[in-house]
Amino acid sequence: MSVKNFDVVIIGGGPAGIITGVTGKKQYPDKSFLLLMEEAKGLVPCGIPYVFHDVGDVDKNLMGPKPFVDAGGEVLVEKVESVNPKNHEVVLANGDIVKYEKLVFATGSLPSIPRFIKGYDLDGVEYIKKSYNTIKALKEKTDVAKNIVVVGGGFIGVEMAEQLARDPERNVSLIEMEKYCLYRAFSEDACVLAEEKIKEAGVNLHTSTKVQEVKGNGKVEKVVLSDGTELDADIVIMAIGYKPRIEIAWDAGIKLNEWKAICVDNYLRTSEPDVFAVGDCSGTKGFITGNDNNVMLASTATAEARVLGYNLFSIRLKRNIMGTLSVFSTDLRGKVFASAGAIEQVAKSAGIEYVVGKFIDIDRHPGAFSDTSELRVKLIVSPIDGIIIGGEICGGKSAGELINVIGLAIQKSVTVFEMISFQIGTHPLLTGAPTKYALVKAAELAVMNMKKYNS
Amino acid sequence: MSVKNFDVVIIGGGPAGIITGVTGKKQYPDKSFLLLMEEAKGLVPCGIPYVFHDVGDVDKNLMGPKPFVDAGGEVLVEKVESVNPKNHEVVLANGDIVKYEKLVFATGSLPSIPRFIKGYDLDGVEYIKKSYNTIKALKEKTDVAKNIVVVGGGFIGVEMAEQLARDPERNVSLIEMEKYCLYRAFSEDACVLAEEKIKEAGVNLHTSTKVQEVKGNGKVEKVVLSDGTELDADIVIMAIGYKPRIEIAWDAGIKLNEWKAICVDNYLRTSEPDVFAVGDCSGTKGFITGNDNNVMLASTATAEARVLGYNLFSIRLKRNIMGTLSVFSTDLRGKVFASAGAIEQVAKSAGIEYVVGKFIDIDRHPGAFSDTSELRVKLIVSPIDGIIIGGEICGGKSAGELINVIGLAIQKSVTVFEMISFQIGTHPLLTGAPTKYALVKAAELAVMNMKKYNS
Repeated sequence: MSVKNFDVVIIGGGPAGIITGVTGKKQYPDKSFLLLMEEAKGLVPCGIPYVFHDVGDVDKNLMGPKPFVDAGGEVLVEKVESVNPKNHEVVLANGDIVKYEKLVFATGSLPSIPRFIKGYDLDGVEYIKKSYNTIKALKEKTDVAKNIVVVGGGFIGVEMAEQLARDPERNVSLIEMEKYCLYRAFSEDACVLAEEKIKEAGVNLHTSTKVQEVKGNGKVEKVVLSDGTELDADIVIMAIGYKPRIEIAWDAGIKLNEWKAICVDNYLRTSEPDVFAVGDCSGTKGFITGNDNNVMLASTATAEARVLGYNLFSIRLKRNIMGTLSVFSTDLRGKVFASAGAIEQVAKSAGIEYVVGKFIDIDRHPGAFSDTSELRVKLIVSPIDGIIIGGEICGGKSAGELINVIGLAIQKSVTVFEMISFQIGTHPLLTGAPTKYALVKAAELAVMNMKKYNS
Repeated sequence: MSVKNFDVVIIGGGPAGIITGVTGKKQYPDKSFLLLMEEAKGLVPCGIPYVFHDVGDVDKNLMGPKPFVDAGGEVLVEKVESVNPKNHEVVLANGDIVKYEKLVFATGSLPSIPRFIKGYDLDGVEYIKKSYNTIKALKEKTDVAKNIVVVGGGFIGVEMAEQLARDPERNVSLIEMEKYCLYRAFSEDACVLAEEKIKEAGVNLHTSTKVQEVKGNGKVEKVVLSDGTELDADIVIMAIGYKPRIEIAWDAGIKLNEWKAICVDNYLRTSEPDVFAVGDCSGTKGFITGNDNNVMLASTATAEARVLGYNLFSIRLKRNIMGTLSVFSTDLRGKVFASAGAIEQVAKSAGIEYVVGKFIDIDRHPGAFSDTSELRVKLIVSPIDGIIIGGEICGGKSAGELINVIGLAIQKSVTVFEMISFQIGTHPLLTGAPTKYALVKAAELAVMNMKKYNS
């Protein structure tokens, strides 16, 4: 047993851990930093579905701690056994002890396991764990599978199903218990368009139904749905969500929120002095809803991690954004779906009054170019003050950055009145026309709906 | 001679006139609106270069007053002879008189004519007037031309040259007197990349040189440059800039600024009561520089026009943006160049201190996708307060909307400190990685440069 000393110890080598390490080491170059990883190779988390077709190889989807090492940080591949906040100690699985001044939990999340489904533990029931070894093994299994059932129509389930269905020899089904896939991130209009694309991809879509049972003799053979449908299956991929990895923190007596994520304040501080948590393992507060929740996005995690890196030893960077804004996007066979902030269902369930402004245009001008896509923009707007609280886009590739215009607008409390005179850059080959730029037109229409609402 | 009465008369049927009309008529539905146009068919102004190849037909690049007519406005195709602000009268070329309560100049701009160049008036010297008839005739002429010389390496000259050079039978030269093309909108780094693309398009580029003389016997035959080069030419296209169309306003005693554009205040009001000016014909004030200038962009014009439409009879919409922000973009053979606000040269010449933050990444993650482009982002930042005052991007198509994130940041005085924790949306198929999203990394690097600057 050896005892080592580091000023900062970070548990977890995903985006949150690495960015905390890089930013922190640059801010505090005289401090020693240790990053503890479970596996030597890390993955680009959002790239995982694309390993199964477009990228084609897990080794082309790697993301490692090189920037952290380049900045002078040290990396150790070893599991953590426990943490003792009182003694400022981390105990490793090999028995070694690392003493720290500041500790960061960046332990990420693990796939949820539906223990309530009979047959959940059969051979061939797979999970999308964000681990090199798991994904490498899963790729090998799916490569030889004919019948694949994906359970869960969130982003990862939808993207996995779409990618797997690219092989025409394969029979891919997708099961979603809600009325629509992606219903957590989009309103009905967008979900309907997304499902068209999912079907166009050759995926057999089953919505408003659940998995009743996974059948098989030791190994998966069939999936039985609650509507009676039976689907042949060589592999069942459970993509029903993730839960924060909090066991070590919990054992150490650190406070969790109602989502079983580590409680943190606006500066990512936990209930224990000198202990922080960042990324999927930590709780978040909705930027618009004000509610506790647990958004798990690499983009959000890295934004938190940058703030944390600055502020490890004292507050050097004011965190202006008092809450987490989810900005989502995906691309289904060239059609892009993106949303930011409070979409209609979210606003409704959080008791937030809203009006919408919707505009449909094309993403080039004039429309005579060959690569034109339809562009739908919807803004969700607070009807009294006109502040933009959410947005939704279906369009071509440009929607991937256009959603970030809306994201910035929400974060800066921009009103639809300001958006009406927003000075935009437009170009025939790149955007819609300045005379009817969809974001501005949607703002104009929201103003009209505010008038009706307030009269 | 007839006398008609309208509450609002708008002179000019380009983007500024149409959007003022549409917005105004919707705001004041009980008022009567007349739009005076010189030609029955209007063009998408920024689409003009693409008529010459990608769009291929001037009739596929039309933009008319239909939304204005649908809203209840009236259109008359007739030239204006003069305006009498004291009597609230417009005199038409046919002798008819239109009386108004409010008058809007949206008369646009005309190509600058280089009368100082010998041979400027030879047959075959052409100008890119934003007129259906002119562009239709020019298209017919270029279709049969073998040797074309384009003079002026601004956006329109560059785009025209690139489009004309798409026909491999044609020999296209581009003349720019500055060291680089597009030097008004981009710093040296970006200009060098843009010129690579211009040359790759097959354009013969001549920079740091001027046209000495256009030679020919009645009709253009040769262009002689100041460095002695002689170029064969069937057609010479002068793309050396535009000047505001202000003759009628000037004759009516309305005040002009030093750029010979109509003086307007922040609400587009001229020196005469009840008379407004909007778009290319009116002067602008630099959002960052504070200087009088004369930005001519359809995007800027339409932003002004929306504000004006609301405020024709009283101030209903506060105009938050106290100045004009140029946001430029263009696409040269799949490489996109975009800038917003004060680029380095602009800041320098306006006496504005600045630091930059530059980051180069790719616009997908991981980089293993087939449609990946290099993405370069440069932020220009005020070194004391950290406010973003300009930005520049070279990248793939997504740069066309990413520049609007920077544009909104400038308009809302976002600092690089805020940008560090900006919550972005990222997706493997659509954007760079969240761990090194170029805009955020550029902000981080600007903060480091601010530290050096302030130490």
